[in-house]
Amino acid sequence: MQPLTEFPLIQRFFTQQRVKNPQTNLGIGDDCALLSVPDGYQLAITTDTMVENVHFFADADPEQLGHKLLAVNLSDLASMGAQPLSVTLALTLPKVNEDWLTAFSKGFLGLAEQYSVDLIGGDTTSGHLTLTVQALGLVPKGKGLRRSTAKVGDYIYLTGSLGDAGLGLKIKQGYNCSQAHTETALVRFNNPNPQVQTGLALLDIANACIDISDGLLADLEHILEQSQVGARLDWELLPLSEAVHSYINETGNWSLPLIAGDDYELCFTVSPEKVKLLTIPCTKIGVIEALSGLRLYKSGQLQSLTSKGYEHFS
Amino acid sequence: MQPLTEFPLIQRFFTQQRVKNPQTNLGIGDDCALLSVPDGYQLAITTDTMVENVHFFADADPEQLGHKLLAVNLSDLASMGAQPLSVTLALTLPKVNEDWLTAFSKGFLGLAEQYSVDLIGGDTTSGHLTLTVQALGLVPKGKGLRRSTAKVGDYIYLTGSLGDAGLGLKIKQGYNCSQAHTETALVRFNNPNPQVQTGLALLDIANACIDISDGLLADLEHILEQSQVGARLDWELLPLSEAVHSYINETGNWSLPLIAGDDYELCFTVSPEKVKLLTIPCTKIGVIEALSGLRLYKSGQLQSLTSKGYEHFS
Repeated sequence: MQPLTEFPLIQRFFTQQRVKNPQTNLGIGDDCALLSVPDGYQLAITTDTMVENVHFFADADPEQLGHKLLAVNLSDLASMGAQPLSVTLALTLPKVNEDWLTAFSKGFLGLAEQYSVDLIGGDTTSGHLTLTVQALGLVPKGKGLRRSTAKVGDYIYLTGSLGDAGLGLKIKQGYNCSQAHTETALVRFNNPNPQVQTGLALLDIANACIDISDGLLADLEHILEQSQVGARLDWELLPLSEAVHSYINETGNWSLPLIAGDDYELCFTVSPEKVKLLTIPCTKIGVIEALSGLRLYKSGQLQSLTSKGYEHFS
Repeated sequence: MQPLTEFPLIQRFFTQQRVKNPQTNLGIGDDCALLSVPDGYQLAITTDTMVENVHFFADADPEQLGHKLLAVNLSDLASMGAQPLSVTLALTLPKVNEDWLTAFSKGFLGLAEQYSVDLIGGDTTSGHLTLTVQALGLVPKGKGLRRSTAKVGDYIYLTGSLGDAGLGLKIKQGYNCSQAHTETALVRFNNPNPQVQTGLALLDIANACIDISDGLLADLEHILEQSQVGARLDWELLPLSEAVHSYINETGNWSLPLIAGDDYELCFTVSPEKVKLLTIPCTKIGVIEALSGLRLYKSGQLQSLTSKGYEHFS
């Protein structure tokens, strides 16, 4: 264990080249960071933790891990329609491994650079590998996309395709498929792209929005419960990649795209009158109904939903 | 391991009776919380992690632990002169122990109630016990107390007394002293009080400020380095409790109050002209000088400073 003190560790591995946001008035190095919020905006705040052997494998590539840790937090901002602003990073590390930290910070700060996110604070502690980010973003006052505001009659949409990250996990666990499909799935599993621009484009259009981190069924149910509505989904409408289609054909496991987590696509609802305003690539997968509960149709048959997206502590 | 899902777990143990701040526009339950920052204010942001067997003993009382976790974060806000507003809580737990969670949340939310702090978000994950809080507070624009703005000629002040928490740690590790001194020291070790009101009272008065979490020498050195100044301290001026005096008399270990962490008092500098404005209980312990470095005098003799406050990864 190399004696690196907390302050030099942050300075050495996590100093960004420049402050990216005019809102960042004071960054790393004091007891607190200082931030300004412009008139007419609210601050959106979210936090997510990733734990070794729970959320990632012990041999995970540290650069991909740094990217993914920030991505899952930016995804929460995206689902609110927030413009990312800044983050804090709480790193609990078993030891100071310079190669690991160099790669991890490269992945983390690379994605931060892409979205002009300032790393404004952090804490490094000793212990089992546990990574917590809190992310801050800006939304126009009263415009943030919520889970609780879906309306009966809204169409349900999805960005991207579903189940690719879940297939990536299957591959990590031993499933074999073609080289091309393996690459597609592993990129989605290891390097998710937060749908930040999409979230911003949905302001004033979507009635409700959530990101798919725990699986479509589990996450859509949050919208249904909090909005006190139900929904009908058609399996045939789900946007699936060739890789996931091929996996389902081979295994018969058609529930993968419904319950697999880690996709970080956005699921949102739009009133029929506003559908024409949608300018982003997305797929209609169902409709919000007054009757509570989620009804999934496959080949015209109502299916029994016994499995849900994964939950922690299950 | 009881199957409790994340959302009910947060709802069950961490729901506050009411939102305390008008700035909290949306609390727990969506992808993000939403916060307003009033005109003329900046947001102060800090994060701190506590890890089992590093920052607290495995048998730590969970109610005291909940209190302390929030207290150390509020202490960082206090040292900036910020009014606490809201926090997020990232809990990594080895299992769902209802008794532990009940007591932990009682300690955490009890202190939150005392300072009108809203718990606005969180994440619960499975793993080794690791607790991360991010705290948000308000400071009047441009008034935040910094580490980097101490001036030559400033007097150096301390709130409260030094070394009591360090003595508490010694007692936990086997040191024996009187019942009364044991109680004094353990309360300071287990239930620190963040100096929130003091921090607010120092706005427009102090030139620089920091909280004593890693020991006076280590923390004061942050002020000296960032302000590019030096300091003279007089050991005889240090505010010590009877318990710490008695420990030093018995052991000869006079460096305890200089290097022990966990006191969470404020160390600040004030120009001589502004000293008359100080209305809070505090003790002058030294003076800021132009010559860099920290010079400690004891019985009129310059002492060699070989030990510092503790650092992580040492």
